[in-house]
Parts: sequence; structure tokens; C-alpha cells
Amino acid sequence: MERTRDAELRARAAKVVPGGMYGHMNGANLPPVFPQFYTEGEGAHVTDADGNRYVDLMCAYGPIVLGHRHPAVEKAAAAQRDAGDCFSGPSPRLVELAELFVDTVAAADWAMFAKNGTDATTVSLMIARAATGRRTVLAAAGSYHGSAPWCTPNPAGTTPGDRGDLGYFTYNDLASARAAADTAGDDLAAIIVTPFRHDAHHDQELADPEFARGLREICDRTGAALILDDVRCGFRLDLAGSWEPLGVRPDLSAWSKAIANGHALAAITGTDALRDAATRIYATGSFWCSAVSMAAAIATITELRRIDGPALMKAAGTRLRDGLAAQAATHGFTINQTGPVQMPFLTFAEDPHLDVANAWTSACVRRGAIVHPWHNWFMSTAHTPDAIDAALQATDEAFAAVRAGRP
Amino acid sequence: MERTRDAELRARAAKVVPGGMYGHMNGANLPPVFPQFYTEGEGAHVTDADGNRYVDLMCAYGPIVLGHRHPAVEKAAAAQRDAGDCFSGPSPRLVELAELFVDTVAAADWAMFAKNGTDATTVSLMIARAATGRRTVLAAAGSYHGSAPWCTPNPAGTTPGDRGDLGYFTYNDLASARAAADTAGDDLAAIIVTPFRHDAHHDQELADPEFARGLREICDRTGAALILDDVRCGFRLDLAGSWEPLGVRPDLSAWSKAIANGHALAAITGTDALRDAATRIYATGSFWCSAVSMAAAIATITELRRIDGPALMKAAGTRLRDGLAAQAATHGFTINQTGPVQMPFLTFAEDPHLDVANAWTSACVRRGAIVHPWHNWFMSTAHTPDAIDAALQATDEAFAAVRAGRP
Repeated sequence: MERTRDAELRARAAKVVPGGMYGHMNGANLPPVFPQFYTEGEGAHVTDADGNRYVDLMCAYGPIVLGHRHPAVEKAAAAQRDAGDCFSGPSPRLVELAELFVDTVAAADWAMFAKNGTDATTVSLMIARAATGRRTVLAAAGSYHGSAPWCTPNPAGTTPGDRGDLGYFTYNDLASARAAADTAGDDLAAIIVTPFRHDAHHDQELADPEFARGLREICDRTGAALILDDVRCGFRLDLAGSWEPLGVRPDLSAWSKAIANGHALAAITGTDALRDAATRIYATGSFWCSAVSMAAAIATITELRRIDGPALMKAAGTRLRDGLAAQAATHGFTINQTGPVQMPFLTFAEDPHLDVANAWTSACVRRGAIVHPWHNWFMSTAHTPDAIDAALQATDEAFAAVRAGRP
Repeated sequence: MERTRDAELRARAAKVVPGGMYGHMNGANLPPVFPQFYTEGEGAHVTDADGNRYVDLMCAYGPIVLGHRHPAVEKAAAAQRDAGDCFSGPSPRLVELAELFVDTVAAADWAMFAKNGTDATTVSLMIARAATGRRTVLAAAGSYHGSAPWCTPNPAGTTPGDRGDLGYFTYNDLASARAAADTAGDDLAAIIVTPFRHDAHHDQELADPEFARGLREICDRTGAALILDDVRCGFRLDLAGSWEPLGVRPDLSAWSKAIANGHALAAITGTDALRDAATRIYATGSFWCSAVSMAAAIATITELRRIDGPALMKAAGTRLRDGLAAQAATHGFTINQTGPVQMPFLTFAEDPHLDVANAWTSACVRRGAIVHPWHNWFMSTAHTPDAIDAALQATDEAFAAVRAGRP
């Protein structure tokens, strides 16, 4: 597998980008065979800078939900682009998209738009604090809510004050959440929580329905806002909101990643009770009303509804999970597949330093499938049975190669 | 001037968007004749939802620096889009764009990219704090550095802790900055400052070169980082950085708005001394490496260099300023035009409640020129002499109408 061009680009990047790359896409955090640079995407496939083509099971860490360069999305984006994108006010797409969110998301009476998932979680906290006049926000220890100083998993460059009004509980441990709420007392502004526990470097853990209902109960009892951080899961599990199957409705939801199939957009939705507070805060950005991303979002959500995107991703994810389980058994590996099948993740038993995971994912990459050793993967509706079967051929050969000690 | 469609959209928005709109583009903060919704842009012109066409002197509050839908920018964006935009890693455009920033910006040894100006200022603070191991950041009271809790001009929904590590000085008052630095003592991590004082609701004020040099001296003496917030001014005043004409080089610069002619992008540049700290912080977002916006930025900066964009905007802004000065004198108004001509702003004498400004800007809008009563305007290179003259015809009629009491 050729890596010449990727190596050249990494060498150039090392001179003009700190560390050669930054953030969650930093190839330094992955085995060296993973490509750092990508050049093309189409449907379920991506191509790296050396021309190697892969079945893409990472979907840009989530944004690609209908497949790369989806025709209906790109057609809608192009139509808007031919008129214009970035003005001194929104386009009519803003209204249409807000109406579509309200029509699609069960707990949404209104919507606001931003660019980053971090914008959406941060604005949600501001709305909850404005609504309650309180300061303390509770989050699960280790949950990822973005890269702003209040939530970054890496404290470098932050101050204790950045997290001074946060309290922490353990995901799925309702007693710990109740204890944290008791500590906050009458200063509890909000609880922010992900739909399931999808922390990097950990097996995924579905939300215990009692835990979800218990958080709702704490918020109802105290007048705090329940914020569902649906940035990573949104529109993959349930178009009405990721906790709708549990019957637990949040007061505020944060969205981004999949809502515009790769176009930069985030959203905050909320209930009527929070509308006034949302009006009183100041939330804005130079590109938060850009029309092309909103046209893309309208097309994305419309298509996800038309084809029942979550059901398609569930079928694709089930086919992948079943195939991986059978392969692992055949090759004599004990694996753990966790989380909803639309967001797959595979770890190996007794692999504390990820030696096996690194070897196996490297072998998958060499054989044409992009997976990840310590972060959940993502399904898209472009993962047809053929695409999954192509990925499974790579994963099967990877299991065999690792078993044979020649990854 | 027809406003039917705009009114319909506002009514729909009022149901599904808090307050009907949010942030700096909220039409509720402008006289009612201003359009809330825009549908088209081309070159120096925009069209509102009712089909009214205007000379656009606001340029989307800054992003549009080469005119709407600039052919070279959109061609580069389209070429990248045909390959793909949003992957699980950057495209080669990231490297090319970082190299271009390093080649263009005097104080840049490296670059990182984000989506919002607020991302760029916030990441700059994180880098400065990581580099120094200190907490306190000084900013000019009233300067706008973004909408995050640490810098939003509206404290609703924020906590005192969000600003707990900030100190304040008065723009252009070096003694106040020195006093704030003395108060910070050995905890001074950074001073963040805009290239000139462009606070909304105030006349603009150019930076006193002694003030700029004095801030540089404080940082040199204390080991703090000087952060130039070039989000609003960047690439309009000087392509090498907005304080390069003053001979004052920042350690870190925050960029956004104009760098990709309307495509959503932000950048942080810095010196070698800050490279290690930039490597140690965690800064990321789902769309921070999206390739289309980077292709657009490469084309935008290349074009601005090729045509000397700042010189063209200076000529356009001078033509506008001279014309407005002559018109005001003719019609008997005492006005104040402040700031660099590339970022015009006009206020009226003895107009504390903006009654005249609101009447005059409304009259301009009615006659086909988008200006602003309390926020600086923006020139682009699409403001040809003909476009400026068309705007000046509207402004002249507006002066006459306000003088006659029939705006």
C-alpha cells in the first residue's frame, strides 16, 4: 500500500501546522498505516492522498450519514449556492430548516443554528443558565461534549475556573447523579448527557432507561434543564431524538455532525419553556446563517425521513456486527461489540494497550476498510449490503493476518 | 419598497426561532425597513426576499471581501467539492493553506484552522495559557472577541467564573494596560487586542502606535503572549497582518471572516515560540478540516495578493468617504467618519439615541444601499467606482430626504 504522497504531506505539514495536525483527526494518534490525508469521497468509499480506496466505516467521525457527495444533498446545496450563501442576514432556508427540525424532533418547539457541536452544547448551557438564573451544570465524567475550555478532555491551556461551575456524575449511575444534584442544591441549572456512553477509549454503553428517566425526574423536581447532547448520535438512532425510544424528552438538544451530511452546521433545539431564555442570550457567528449548509440540511433530513435512514443504518450495522462476530469466532478472537449497531465499535478481550486492536485495524486499513482502534465507528445509508460485504472481506483477512502474526 | 415576503418569513420565524432571529444578524436590532432575509448575492450587490436589490456595504459583516460569488473562489471550491469535502482527516488543501498563511502573514510560523472567529480567539487564549502556565488574559473593556461565555458582550447565561481569569484595560490607554498587567503580576498569560477599536455603538478609533508598541513591550517584559484579534480586520488592512504597518508583530493572531470570501473558516497563526503549546492543547471540530472551505481560502488569499486587495478596498473606501463628506456638507449635516476607509463607519453629531442614524440608514436602504447605524461597514474589492457611485447616489438622496424630514 503506497504511502509516498501521505508521507510527503505529513513532512510539509510538520513545518506549518503544530505537531503536523491537531484534534481528533490527528494521525499521530493512530497506527502509522492509517492515512492522514484524504482526497476523495463517494458514497461509502473514500480515497487517500496516495490513491488507495477504502470502504469508509468512519464517515468523517459522523457527519457523512447519507454517503459522501449524496446527489440530493449536493443538488440542493448547488441550487442555493447559485443564488448565494453568506449574507448580512439569513436566507429563507433558516425558517424552512427550523420548521423541519420542529416537525421532526419530538422535543423541539424551536431551533437555532451554529457551526460546531461545541457551539451547540455551549449555547445549550447558556440557555439553561439564563432560564434558571443558576450556575451549576452536571455532566458525566469522561463524556465528550466538545473542545471548548469548559468541556475539553485535555485541560492544557484551560483554567480551573473554566470548569468551576461544573459537577460530575457517573454515566448510568443514577445514585451518583442524584448525589451531584444534591450537592448543587438550588444552584442546579442543567444536566447535560449523551444518548449513550460513547467515550473514546472505552467500550460503548447503552443508556439504562431507569437512568434516563431518573435524570428527567431530577430536572423536573429541581427546575433544571435536561440537555441531550445529540451531536454524535443525532439522526442515526431515531429522527425524533435519540432518547425518544426511551420515552425521555430533553428540554434542550444539541445537534451537529450528521444534520447536513458533511456541510458545516450545528443546531440547538428546545421547548417552549426555554424559548424566552434562548431569546435573551447572545449567540452568534459569522457563518451561523450561511444558506448553503442549511439547504444541505433540509435535503439531508428530508432524505433521512423519506428512506427511514436509521432503519437502513441499523440493517447495515447489524450485517456488519453479525459478520464480525462470526469472523472473530472463526479466527479464535474474543471480541466485544458495543453500542447501537448504527455506531459500531469493536474491542478485543485482554487488550489493555490496544496491541491487538492496533494490529487488526491496521490490517483492515491495509486491506481497504477504514475502522478505528479506540473510537466508535459510524454507519451511513450508503453502506449497502455490498459495501458491508466488501468491508467484511477486509476484516476477515485482517483477523486471519493478525492470527497468523503477519498483519 | 416591497416587504411582503420578508414579513411573512419573519412571522414564520417567530414561531420556530427564539425571538424570530438571534445574534448580530437579528433584524430586531435594526430599523424595520432593513431586510431580515436575503436571497441572492453577486459581486457588490445583494437581493432581499422581496426581490429588492442593493449595493451591499456590509459584506455579510465582513466575510465577503472579493464580492459575492467570486468566480475564482467558487471555481476552486467547486473543483474540491467534485472530489469531496468532509473526511476522517484533512485534505492536502490543509497543508497548502497553512503554507500560504505562513508565506503571507509576517508573524506566522504555523497555522491551525477552525470554523468561527470565536474558535480562533478562544484557541489563542488556550495556547497562550498552555505556553505560559498562567491564567490571566487582559482585554480592552468593550472590545468584541466573540460570543463564547468568556467574551460575549451580553452576560445572560454566563457565570462570573467564565470571566474570572480576565482583566481589562482601556483601548489606546497604555497606562491602563500597564496597570492591569501589574495587577496580573506573574500570572499574565496574554493580552488580546483588536487592530483598532471597532466596538459596535461607538465611533471607531485607530490604534495609537505607542499603545501597540507598549502592549508588545509589556508582553516582551513579562513573557506573556500578544494576541492580535484580526477576525474582523484581517486581510482588509494589510495582508501581512493588520499591525504590520505599525511594526508590531503579535505572537498569535486570530482570523476568520474574510479569509475564505464567505466560506466558513477561521484560522490561528503563531510564532515558533508558541508551536509547542499549540501542539499540547486539544482543539478540534467536526468540520475544522473540511476541504472546500480551505480551497476557497487558498483562492481568496491568492486573489487578494494578486490584485492587492487592501489597496483596492482603500481606494473604494476613500471614494465613499470623500463622497459622503461632501454630501453631508452639502446637506448641512455634521458627521463623523472613523476607522480605516476599508471598514467605513459614519455617525451623526449630537445623535445620542441614533435617531438621525436610524432615519438616514433607513433612507439609504429604501434607496438601494445596505449600510448600518451602529456597526462598522465593510468594503470589498467588488466595490468598483461604479458601485460606490451607485451607493453614493442612494446616500445623497437619503441625506436630502432626512434633511427634508421625509426619510
